[in-house]
Amino acid sequence: MSDQLSSSAQSVTEMVEGLARAARVAQRQLAQMDAPAKEQALKFAADALRSAEAEILAANAQDIVNGAANGLSPAMLDRLKLTPERLAGVADAVAQVASLTDPVGQVIDETARPNGMVLQRVRVPVGVIGIIYESRPNVTADAAALCVRSGNATILRGGSEAVHSNRAIHAALVKGLTRGGVPADAVQLMPTQDRAAVGAMLAAAGLIDMIVPRGGKSLVARVQADARVPVLAHLDGINHTFVHAAADADMAKAIALNAKMRRTGICGAMETLLIDATYPDPHGLVEPLLAAGCELRGDARACAIDPRIAPASDEDWDTEYLEAILSVAVVDGLDAALAHIAAHASGHTDAIVTANQAVADRFLGEVDSAIVMHNASSQFADGGEFGLGAEIGIATGRLHARGPVALEGLTTYKWLVRGSGQVRP
Amino acid sequence: MSDQLSSSAQSVTEMVEGLARAARVAQRQLAQMDAPAKEQALKFAADALRSAEAEILAANAQDIVNGAANGLSPAMLDRLKLTPERLAGVADAVAQVASLTDPVGQVIDETARPNGMVLQRVRVPVGVIGIIYESRPNVTADAAALCVRSGNATILRGGSEAVHSNRAIHAALVKGLTRGGVPADAVQLMPTQDRAAVGAMLAAAGLIDMIVPRGGKSLVARVQADARVPVLAHLDGINHTFVHAAADADMAKAIALNAKMRRTGICGAMETLLIDATYPDPHGLVEPLLAAGCELRGDARACAIDPRIAPASDEDWDTEYLEAILSVAVVDGLDAALAHIAAHASGHTDAIVTANQAVADRFLGEVDSAIVMHNASSQFADGGEFGLGAEIGIATGRLHARGPVALEGLTTYKWLVRGSGQVRP
Repeated sequence: MSDQLSSSAQSVTEMVEGLARAARVAQRQLAQMDAPAKEQALKFAADALRSAEAEILAANAQDIVNGAANGLSPAMLDRLKLTPERLAGVADAVAQVASLTDPVGQVIDETARPNGMVLQRVRVPVGVIGIIYESRPNVTADAAALCVRSGNATILRGGSEAVHSNRAIHAALVKGLTRGGVPADAVQLMPTQDRAAVGAMLAAAGLIDMIVPRGGKSLVARVQADARVPVLAHLDGINHTFVHAAADADMAKAIALNAKMRRTGICGAMETLLIDATYPDPHGLVEPLLAAGCELRGDARACAIDPRIAPASDEDWDTEYLEAILSVAVVDGLDAALAHIAAHASGHTDAIVTANQAVADRFLGEVDSAIVMHNASSQFADGGEFGLGAEIGIATGRLHARGPVALEGLTTYKWLVRGSGQVRP
Repeated sequence: MSDQLSSSAQSVTEMVEGLARAARVAQRQLAQMDAPAKEQALKFAADALRSAEAEILAANAQDIVNGAANGLSPAMLDRLKLTPERLAGVADAVAQVASLTDPVGQVIDETARPNGMVLQRVRVPVGVIGIIYESRPNVTADAAALCVRSGNATILRGGSEAVHSNRAIHAALVKGLTRGGVPADAVQLMPTQDRAAVGAMLAAAGLIDMIVPRGGKSLVARVQADARVPVLAHLDGINHTFVHAAADADMAKAIALNAKMRRTGICGAMETLLIDATYPDPHGLVEPLLAAGCELRGDARACAIDPRIAPASDEDWDTEYLEAILSVAVVDGLDAALAHIAAHASGHTDAIVTANQAVADRFLGEVDSAIVMHNASSQFADGGEFGLGAEIGIATGRLHARGPVALEGLTTYKWLVRGSGQVRP
């Protein structure tokens, strides 16, 4: 590395650390705002987004022009594109987050000790949260709103392709939030697109308390590999649905079709179908999937169900397709299904379809994934569908928060001890 | 690095990864054991420790001989030493952990969705936990018991100076636990003292789910610096007690003396005393500390309280003494105390003494430490004193678990979704 590059990385690191320190100071003020004050500030932010429609759409138009010139795919341009309707949706989402129940200050539990001390665990914000994301400019508003609602400061680092949109959205957000008394430094947008800034965020242990990556697998993988700061994320959703011998056939058909084909590109989509060897009508189960245009790749016994099922390779069992492709294995009962899932699942969402309650209970007990379902489509794996209001992401790590992470996952707790002069004997 | 060293580190890494994989398999079996079965297995383990007294004390005697030959300090030899009484205490502690309430399977919350799905969050073990510790052989039994009770597999890596003691204790534990149906691989002792094994544990992200270091500051610092696996720990306990203007003088004297001098070497000991500038009797507050033999180091105003108070250096405010030394600052009211704590506290335990409830409430709300106390000695910062039964450690990180960490902190949760054929529209 040349001296010049090295000194540039050094100055970016110092800049990021400066942002994080300013965020910490702002967070301590934000943490003292009560729920109605934060709610009001977020409503002002939603209003400010609506008022800034012209500026935001103009900025977005510039990103679209640049993106087209830089050869972004139509799908990426669509993710980047804001319309008046989409922007209204972004503002509405901020207003909805404003009205969610505030987790800060909730008493988790309380105990009185024999010596008279009273202990409480009380929810408090995590602190300073870094969000690293790609082309969707709505993340700027969504993530900032969730962080403010839960009393956290946030440092946003969006993709280069959305830089003008993100700046315009951020400016509007800050205008609204500061009107409501939130310190401006509580919501910061990284002022540079230098990639060294991402590295500096990932290295900022003690200054940034948590990183949430929002984007494709390569982004999440890089963040997970390099971060010294705790990361809340999922890399893969290699989700299984096991159709047990005692499954209701109509239910199994409907769930399998929905779990794979409703939307193939979401992380809750089924990627592997496990069929019990004694399930009475395997052909009836795969037929609707094939008819819907899904490519099926099976083990030897699955291939015997229908000639349109192609042989699966070893990698298929560990692949998140995110498209209309499904791997299918025939397994010998519950234990074989559990073994397959233990070997290949990514810990996201795995489901069983069965009318046998004892089998369902074993599956729910033994599958070691963030979400385990009985007689439901894995496509429900979503914070909104779980009634959490909005999610910052879905986590497959084992610590702190698992599955859909919403406001509560953006909090931690502290112990409050109230005494009357107790000293320890 | 020579090729030979490199290939040795490689083989240690493979060995550690093999241990962790075996631990994962054993953990899945352990996770299915119900509370009475785990309780019985731990009682067998306590019995086995008592039955193996002769072997364990003989092994410990060998460690003591080696330690003396290697020049261990008397304090280190004392930490290493087992007597019949101490070993009985170790066995009793295992039996006590056996009788703690099992957190696994507890339903954290339950909601029914409008579509009829019922969602639960249920506590499950974290998975595979690595314990890296120094000379105290009792940690082998304590940590293993807490992990087994909470359904976790554990990989224990103790200090070289206690290797014979640890092997003997581990052998007895496994004998008792397997009698109770716990798989032997659920509690593993690192079979080598090669330091590369510690590095391999710290690097084993995805194979080991959490590392708990137990030992001195240099051990914790190394683990925190190098780990790719989440770490539950505290580095420092730079704990403040703020005596507010409205503190009851007798209470303030008793708390300050106890917080510093009851035991100076524990992480909950006070390290800095903050005295409100308008507190009426500062000399009465410091006099008992001086009389008890505590060295006081103060800022200019503190030095004016008593000629025996020496001037503090800048480093004093960021120092965990763990001995009979105390830094003392005079501050102008609550806001100055909060600012000093925000700048210098390590996030462990900070306390206020005051009869003014509004001031206490602000202190409890605004101090951002794992434990915040009102009118009590910081020496209560301990899982046993908090009624948690036993603690695996005290954490000052912000995620997952904070303050004293006991069985609940060794669990996470999963979402169970029970449907009746729901598909997502």
